[in-house]
Amino acid sequence: MSEDVKNSADKKEEGLPRLEISEIYRAAAVLSDVARHTKLMAMPLINPDVPLYIKPENMQHTGAFKLRGAYYKISQLTPEERAKGVIACSAGNHAQGVALAATHNGIRSLICLPAGAPISKIEATKRLGAEVCLVPGVYDDAYQKAVDLQKEHGYTFIHPFDDPKVIAGQGTIALEILEDMPDVEAVVVPIGGGGLIGGIAFALKQLKPEVKVYGVQAKGAPSMAESVEKGERVHLDQVATVADGIAVKEPGRLTFDLCEKYVDEIVTVSDDEIAAAILALIEQQRLVAEGAGAVAVAAVMFNKLPLKDVKTVALVSGGNIDVTNLNRVITRGLVKSGRIADLRLEVRDQPAVLSSIANILGALGANILSVHHERHSASKNINDCIVHIEAETRNAEHIAAIEKALTEAGHEVVLRR
Amino acid sequence: MSEDVKNSADKKEEGLPRLEISEIYRAAAVLSDVARHTKLMAMPLINPDVPLYIKPENMQHTGAFKLRGAYYKISQLTPEERAKGVIACSAGNHAQGVALAATHNGIRSLICLPAGAPISKIEATKRLGAEVCLVPGVYDDAYQKAVDLQKEHGYTFIHPFDDPKVIAGQGTIALEILEDMPDVEAVVVPIGGGGLIGGIAFALKQLKPEVKVYGVQAKGAPSMAESVEKGERVHLDQVATVADGIAVKEPGRLTFDLCEKYVDEIVTVSDDEIAAAILALIEQQRLVAEGAGAVAVAAVMFNKLPLKDVKTVALVSGGNIDVTNLNRVITRGLVKSGRIADLRLEVRDQPAVLSSIANILGALGANILSVHHERHSASKNINDCIVHIEAETRNAEHIAAIEKALTEAGHEVVLRR
Repeated sequence: MSEDVKNSADKKEEGLPRLEISEIYRAAAVLSDVARHTKLMAMPLINPDVPLYIKPENMQHTGAFKLRGAYYKISQLTPEERAKGVIACSAGNHAQGVALAATHNGIRSLICLPAGAPISKIEATKRLGAEVCLVPGVYDDAYQKAVDLQKEHGYTFIHPFDDPKVIAGQGTIALEILEDMPDVEAVVVPIGGGGLIGGIAFALKQLKPEVKVYGVQAKGAPSMAESVEKGERVHLDQVATVADGIAVKEPGRLTFDLCEKYVDEIVTVSDDEIAAAILALIEQQRLVAEGAGAVAVAAVMFNKLPLKDVKTVALVSGGNIDVTNLNRVITRGLVKSGRIADLRLEVRDQPAVLSSIANILGALGANILSVHHERHSASKNINDCIVHIEAETRNAEHIAAIEKALTEAGHEVVLRR
Repeated sequence: MSEDVKNSADKKEEGLPRLEISEIYRAAAVLSDVARHTKLMAMPLINPDVPLYIKPENMQHTGAFKLRGAYYKISQLTPEERAKGVIACSAGNHAQGVALAATHNGIRSLICLPAGAPISKIEATKRLGAEVCLVPGVYDDAYQKAVDLQKEHGYTFIHPFDDPKVIAGQGTIALEILEDMPDVEAVVVPIGGGGLIGGIAFALKQLKPEVKVYGVQAKGAPSMAESVEKGERVHLDQVATVADGIAVKEPGRLTFDLCEKYVDEIVTVSDDEIAAAILALIEQQRLVAEGAGAVAVAAVMFNKLPLKDVKTVALVSGGNIDVTNLNRVITRGLVKSGRIADLRLEVRDQPAVLSSIANILGALGANILSVHHERHSASKNINDCIVHIEAETRNAEHIAAIEKALTEAGHEVVLRR
């Protein structure tokens, strides 16, 4: 980051509420009764070059770190604000964090959700004591409804990230990391709106400035990455990623400022990389992460950051993945890590061709999962047909060996995903 | 259990090694450096009538409780036995427990595995420092090879369950439960060979006899349940269950004796019930359990035991599920819990029939996942055809409402899985 950008950031900061390290300690004291102090877990197999630990905030109450910020914010309301209640707009972890925090504090909470939100999320939010207002349309409609209701009734609006109290609550994670691993050298954090990394980066750079703080976004929703690169907040018209929890179109003012000042680098990861990280967390740690929760692990796994021999903590921010999607994610993860080969072959349509292919796969120890043999396909030659095979494999090298053997036997591999 | 059975059990016990509670404390001291003291987690949504906590031994090192028994056993070997090394036969958690325990103790370990064992299990065992001997054939062939090698080379054979030291190691779990929840009223434990429940039941009944101890087996592998019912060890010719970690054909002598004496009741759960429990652990706790690991939770979930208002701990014994199977398990779990409807309809083959069905599903808020429309099927009437529909649903009541609406519209639901 150039000095010019730094200066312009300092200028923009005027008017923004200031964060104080004392507030993060205060938040930790408030949260000590409520939030779990999640324990670091070694994850040595993710990347042989990186001594990696994860902080599993997917094991936090409500399944995500969001409880921390929402709880601290709500705990600091005045008696008048408490009497009127709080409102939020979210179809995800923020909704559950606000609901639980408000209920614990004996405060009424109202959560606006788009009407098409998953039934499981709606039920979980109700179960935690919130009233739910289903708004026809998409997220933006629900947000507008929440703003309208807030103005009408004087509720306090609990912003999911761009609020100094919310950011201070998320920053308590940094205190726990330093307590559990005083010699930590780098912390890798998912970025959606930036509240989580804002609080963590601020606290770490105050307390131990030599610790590197890296942010990770999904390739399909790089709003903070692009904003920091341009030196101003960028609004994306479209975001699309398996990591729906961090699919944010525009960073907050305060969170953008904190990222510019305190975050060393921001990288992005693809949906396939995220799927592979989710799979690794299942197999190596027996933990379920949601897409957003796995991006930091994905960045370490796929060497996006200069972490060779650097003692690193990657934050697993949440675990509320829709199970009807989990199957698809696992399959993508298996493909990405070379454990499933998805081969499409163009072959001459004659007897014994399928047995030739099956023999090659069998001899190389690949276990066939499915075969589709399409005669009437749009193949190049009228006598050719397409054979689509899914097989269990060991790794990418194994798949390469299979492709080579198939090619040498005269079959043309036209597509491998 | 009748007095007669009790007496015959006492007679049979002659010649069996005796377990002492002091040995379980000794095992706990040995394990304090090595095994994680896994912390109880509340799981209030599994059964509204049961105040349930789980002990997540899937978060134990190697992903299963097996490390405890293997480690304690190996730590107690004489210098001569240590010099010769240990051998075991397992394609699962026992292999990894023995490998890690031997490596920690500076002892050579050799694990015999059937040659067709999953690549991931073989790799995990090697990674923990064991030598792996792949034996052509099935488990019984690998076992025979291990016995032959043991005789030839004088290795110590580490039995997966029927060994007092192994049982004492597993029994340390009871001490942790009593320490963390002194007012526990019931403990529910998976049973394969019986080493885990043998150690836990023995310890609990010595220390706090009023705590109920319940065992759970898979319906497809009920060897201990049938043995205890008959009053003698039963050998099953075939076992088949998604819970491969507890697919044991015959209980041990010592473990059978312990179950007869100390276990209050043994029940069984179906594969579908196990799948639903795995799904609940993913959604409610963000934890991955293997089939064997989820049977105790399944027994509570499906009311197999008298636990109304009983403060209960269910043991989640392991989390090493083959991810290529996890997809299938999740789908079964969704079906079992009414979140996917799998409907097969016999309909008159005429235009608009599919749109009529789709309209009904849409109006009731079911989200269609797949449709197969088979004209040339073996339907009752020549003009009928079969429509097979998978749809996302809310719960069993929702599915019943859909079936009712389809039937009222004149479609015949011939099969629902």
